[in-house]
Amino acid sequence: MICIDKIRSARRRLDGHVRLTPIISSPFLDKIAGRRILIKAECLQHTGSFKYRGAWAAISALDEGSRKNGVVAYSSGNHAQAIAAVAKEFGVPAVIVMPSDAPSLKIENTRAYGAEVVIYDRYKEVREEIGLKIASVRGLTLIKPYDDENVIAGQGTLGLEIASQVRAEGVRTADVLVCCGGGGLASGVALALSEEMPELRVRPCEPEFYDDTARSLISGNREINEKHKNSICDAILTPTPGEITFPILARFAGPGLVVSEKEVLIAMSEAFRRLKLVTEPGGVVALASALSRRNEIETEAVVVVITGGNVDPKTFSRALNYSHV
Amino acid sequence: MICIDKIRSARRRLDGHVRLTPIISSPFLDKIAGRRILIKAECLQHTGSFKYRGAWAAISALDEGSRKNGVVAYSSGNHAQAIAAVAKEFGVPAVIVMPSDAPSLKIENTRAYGAEVVIYDRYKEVREEIGLKIASVRGLTLIKPYDDENVIAGQGTLGLEIASQVRAEGVRTADVLVCCGGGGLASGVALALSEEMPELRVRPCEPEFYDDTARSLISGNREINEKHKNSICDAILTPTPGEITFPILARFAGPGLVVSEKEVLIAMSEAFRRLKLVTEPGGVVALASALSRRNEIETEAVVVVITGGNVDPKTFSRALNYSHV
Repeated sequence: MICIDKIRSARRRLDGHVRLTPIISSPFLDKIAGRRILIKAECLQHTGSFKYRGAWAAISALDEGSRKNGVVAYSSGNHAQAIAAVAKEFGVPAVIVMPSDAPSLKIENTRAYGAEVVIYDRYKEVREEIGLKIASVRGLTLIKPYDDENVIAGQGTLGLEIASQVRAEGVRTADVLVCCGGGGLASGVALALSEEMPELRVRPCEPEFYDDTARSLISGNREINEKHKNSICDAILTPTPGEITFPILARFAGPGLVVSEKEVLIAMSEAFRRLKLVTEPGGVVALASALSRRNEIETEAVVVVITGGNVDPKTFSRALNYSHV
Repeated sequence: MICIDKIRSARRRLDGHVRLTPIISSPFLDKIAGRRILIKAECLQHTGSFKYRGAWAAISALDEGSRKNGVVAYSSGNHAQAIAAVAKEFGVPAVIVMPSDAPSLKIENTRAYGAEVVIYDRYKEVREEIGLKIASVRGLTLIKPYDDENVIAGQGTLGLEIASQVRAEGVRTADVLVCCGGGGLASGVALALSEEMPELRVRPCEPEFYDDTARSLISGNREINEKHKNSICDAILTPTPGEITFPILARFAGPGLVVSEKEVLIAMSEAFRRLKLVTEPGGVVALASALSRRNEIETEAVVVVITGGNVDPKTFSRALNYSHV
């Protein structure tokens, strides 16, 4: 298991390069949730998601030779943009493998940061195989989206920030709701908090049909989702918890929370109305859990991480028709 | 003319009650603007606009008797929500005079904060007269939206924040683009910067047909706008610069910038795509100026204040169809 020192070391490398995103709140949301909600607005991070942290941690850890050869990553879009943007900062060539049905904004941005984009068919091909093949044929370093110790350490820096910001808000104990796909962010934050402020407990939040982490935390084994279910939460549609991330979650995280598509759309609309934040479906699953699963939470205050805001206008406009009434 | 001490005193009263909003940026926006843009995301302030600062400064300055009697304000919506929310914090009764065509979100929120809302017809009635009458008949203190020294001092605290945040970003000199209606924010910020960091010069930004401040800064007199022109920038549609605010702007602010409705909609769309911020039309006039008036700006870096995010879903969705190409 990776140790807290790896997260602290990542924080030193990230210092001055990642944005300290604010904690914000709204009395209207507190009322819906039945408790105080502190919202970590990580959609305001560079490239519009927390993935910038892991990307910086991973690329800054590479030796000179590997940087010169370049990196390859597979991602539905947030890890893609982050790797592309950080690679550009370091002058490292980047190849990104993306599904053909990724939001067009994410594909465009990844290209705009100067990366070479390779498109694949999510229903017929396996991205891990494509990534490995490109890495070996072209001599690139593969940076996985979550099962990578440096990536997890980078995401864990968000946990260190939460600890100090939540303390400054006068909160001593709370559940920390984190959107969860492969578990890179949830495990990094859980690990950071277990050392920095164990009174804050991470709870992974997932969309329906992709509740592998919630089920795995109950069974103790890495459960697998049914294939090819539709979901608007493109950022966090992973088949099963990560090999490296799951043991961390099993040790440090609380029970998972699972929300419906409608609850996700309502949360996007409330973030628009009450927080003035642009959020993507996979990035508000934690907020949706706080607003719609109040009976499954026991703490007086809850911390919610909004993880990303890379959403196409059409999906966003659709969400604005929903509201919590 | 009010002095800097009044702004510093307001800052002490506001400390711990207003949110320190972040400075953010995007390489994509820098490219469009042809220079570095530092964006002060004041739409993330409590109640979704900078008006919370002035409201807190004004209500916190009232004596016990006045607080007990209550306050009255007129506003298209942002000053309204801010006065209502702050009045609630202080346990002060509040009456708010709002135009019948204010965005419904603004009217709903003002009521939700517990204020009594009085609706008037913007084309047939004069809000100043209604406000004065209610104040005198019911014994309430009228808090004007901009021609009030405490309100200007409260808005000026944003200037103090900008000075220290911009210094931390390593920027020494820049134009500071501020959305301008009656000039409460622009004058407060200009006054604060004239003392704190005179290398930062305020430039008021206005929508077409409501460019009274730009014209007044040229002529040296308080010019008046043509009546009843349509504009989506509801937050900053004032007939003429304020009596108290204009002499401050005439002394400390640079030339005004004026943008079209289309340029405003493009700026909202870019703030959505690149900053993940929800902005209202009157709140992005400064960003629109930075993106569309690059030839009228000379400084290497520019600071842009996004002043509000209280927008109806329909207007916001409409803006997302635009982009800077």
